[in-house]
Amino acid sequence: MGQSGKTIILCCTMDTKSCEALYLKEQVEAFGHEVRIIDMGMKKPSPPGVFITQAQVAGLYYEQIVSSNIRSEAAAYMIKGLKSIVRQLYADGQLDGIMAIGGSGGTTMASAAMHELPLGVPKIVVTTMASGNTLPYVQGEDVLLLNPVVDIQNLNFLTEYILRQAAAVMNGMICCRPLERGKKKAIAITCFGVTTPCVDRCAGLLQEEGYEVLIFHARGSSGGKIMEKMIAEGHFCAVLDVTTTELADEVAGGIYSVGPRRLREAPAHGIPYIVVPGALEMINLGSEDTLQPAQKARTLYYHSPSSVKMRANGAEMKELGEIFIQRLQHSRPGMTKVIIPARGFSSVDMPGKVFSDPDANQIFINEVKYKMPSNVPVMIQDSHVNDRAFADVLVRELLRMMPKTQY
Amino acid sequence: MGQSGKTIILCCTMDTKSCEALYLKEQVEAFGHEVRIIDMGMKKPSPPGVFITQAQVAGLYYEQIVSSNIRSEAAAYMIKGLKSIVRQLYADGQLDGIMAIGGSGGTTMASAAMHELPLGVPKIVVTTMASGNTLPYVQGEDVLLLNPVVDIQNLNFLTEYILRQAAAVMNGMICCRPLERGKKKAIAITCFGVTTPCVDRCAGLLQEEGYEVLIFHARGSSGGKIMEKMIAEGHFCAVLDVTTTELADEVAGGIYSVGPRRLREAPAHGIPYIVVPGALEMINLGSEDTLQPAQKARTLYYHSPSSVKMRANGAEMKELGEIFIQRLQHSRPGMTKVIIPARGFSSVDMPGKVFSDPDANQIFINEVKYKMPSNVPVMIQDSHVNDRAFADVLVRELLRMMPKTQY
Repeated sequence: MGQSGKTIILCCTMDTKSCEALYLKEQVEAFGHEVRIIDMGMKKPSPPGVFITQAQVAGLYYEQIVSSNIRSEAAAYMIKGLKSIVRQLYADGQLDGIMAIGGSGGTTMASAAMHELPLGVPKIVVTTMASGNTLPYVQGEDVLLLNPVVDIQNLNFLTEYILRQAAAVMNGMICCRPLERGKKKAIAITCFGVTTPCVDRCAGLLQEEGYEVLIFHARGSSGGKIMEKMIAEGHFCAVLDVTTTELADEVAGGIYSVGPRRLREAPAHGIPYIVVPGALEMINLGSEDTLQPAQKARTLYYHSPSSVKMRANGAEMKELGEIFIQRLQHSRPGMTKVIIPARGFSSVDMPGKVFSDPDANQIFINEVKYKMPSNVPVMIQDSHVNDRAFADVLVRELLRMMPKTQY
Repeated sequence: MGQSGKTIILCCTMDTKSCEALYLKEQVEAFGHEVRIIDMGMKKPSPPGVFITQAQVAGLYYEQIVSSNIRSEAAAYMIKGLKSIVRQLYADGQLDGIMAIGGSGGTTMASAAMHELPLGVPKIVVTTMASGNTLPYVQGEDVLLLNPVVDIQNLNFLTEYILRQAAAVMNGMICCRPLERGKKKAIAITCFGVTTPCVDRCAGLLQEEGYEVLIFHARGSSGGKIMEKMIAEGHFCAVLDVTTTELADEVAGGIYSVGPRRLREAPAHGIPYIVVPGALEMINLGSEDTLQPAQKARTLYYHSPSSVKMRANGAEMKELGEIFIQRLQHSRPGMTKVIIPARGFSSVDMPGKVFSDPDANQIFINEVKYKMPSNVPVMIQDSHVNDRAFADVLVRELLRMMPKTQY
């Protein structure tokens, strides 16, 4: 069963989980694959038979790691080494899939390294962290966490069963037809509840034109962050970035901030890119009891008990304009376009609604309109983001930007 | 590839995700299995080709569900129906594995039904809930959440890849050698940081005697709750319940309460059972900012920034004694024994340590000692829970309780 010749990298702490790691290796190899162990352990030198030793992972930082009494500090060094080794193995064609066995420390290290790999490379961690908050480990990506039910502290009927399952899961995933673009060209769109009418209409029109549409909810790791990663991996022929609210969080301390990579990958890869300030006026916070006093004094919208939204003010809108310019200004001429719906950026930003504030929006508009270099055209539309006509403009403009040789 | 003849149940909302469900069905069936769909959708009647329709899931509650405007209320009825159908299919040998595709609502429904099944029946949900707090869905069990990276809203190159992966994962898991008890008999032990010396010594001694030891961290769902479930499923020949702190949480509003099933399964199944008040004086709370004013006035132990412990007072210790009696009193004579370390219940409950309170402990001891019926012997040891001698007594007594025909 299974096709042979695949190389699976297994990350584990050989100082504490060597029996379990060797059992898992044996199970995966029974499917005809080769398993190579990377030792992430920090307490003891690696035993023989390890493909990449603890000392090799530690590299230049070996002395610091061995002498550090602060576990998280030593782990940070190990993560650095692990990431670069995993990247290198993949680049050299020596990694077809990656697995790990870990407690909270091991899972943190292994999952950080897994995020260095493209989508579609099978990634499995056997960890009790699977039952709890997985966001730090999964971060919206295709990292599969398999709950061993009990802590992996020894081999017994249950841990052996779970490790057999993990091996079978890896074999299944790695023998499966890999991730590839379909025959249709694919377009990414960013979405939020408050921009859904716009997104739905755009998606429908683009599908009618023969495109596949992938919709990313702009909620941080599993939204804009993974979309930017997929753009960089070449999965899309164009991006319709209708919902850029994550930038508001970056500017004003919201929960969906994804950092400075946002907006950058499409310009960097030279694909047609339309950027819209959809929900850009909206700073996403947590539940009411997590708000700072200064935040409580601002204009708020109670979306749900766990989700309070804060209206971006003029100063923040100005800063958002600056970010648009900074990150888009080096686009290839004609490949990036900013299209602004002057009558409101979300379903709660229109006359009579809680976030209506045309003056603040105008500060953003002026910033972008007058300061964006001419290689990035800025179109101001006299419509609301959720108007049918606005979606029609977005799709028309995007199709115009497509290379003529597309089909 | 794969052995044929397996029946996979696929739970999905046919009103919103029928294309995706049918694609997944096709992929799983390509491995030679049969897939039967249960429709959890609440918006539209089931289309043809569904094995169990929405109306059959709703059953007696159909009118309430169709007329309800409160989604969570309607979902609660659907969950009730789904659970009983899934239990029945399994009992009838018509369910070898179970899968689901879901958003947050679908994942809630499907995972609740999956918890009705024994450990070792493959359970997979394709859901973006995989990247976030999975505790409500996994609850420490072997429910595998597979993150589709984007919302499953249509079929595209990415969702098709993820669904192919899910099919391959199910095939791998279901063709794998199933969960079984090993040749060694297995004993469950409950553990906590503050009782680790006792647990480690007991585990070592029992392993020397030829037993497999499974250690459960007493942290709620993935601790005592899953252990009780596994006892009920017949996985253990005996239980050494060293750490009963979850009961303190049940009595005093801690975070690891697992409800009234705790302590009950071993007596119900008549296997040798030793119960110890390890860490019973410890009520487990969350981070400091989650504490009520009344809790802040109590004796506290700051275990970590996210974990504050509160000392159980005399009234609570009395109530804990009552719970011991209520839940253990119907044990078969000689099969359950309570063994109490009179010099302290955890590493922070000893002279000079923050939770030392012999008077409060004595209230518990008196309650159990004088009111427990004679079929459940109560032994008071003049030692601390982490004393070597105490662990030796636990193991000696447990071995004495084992049926003589064991080997």
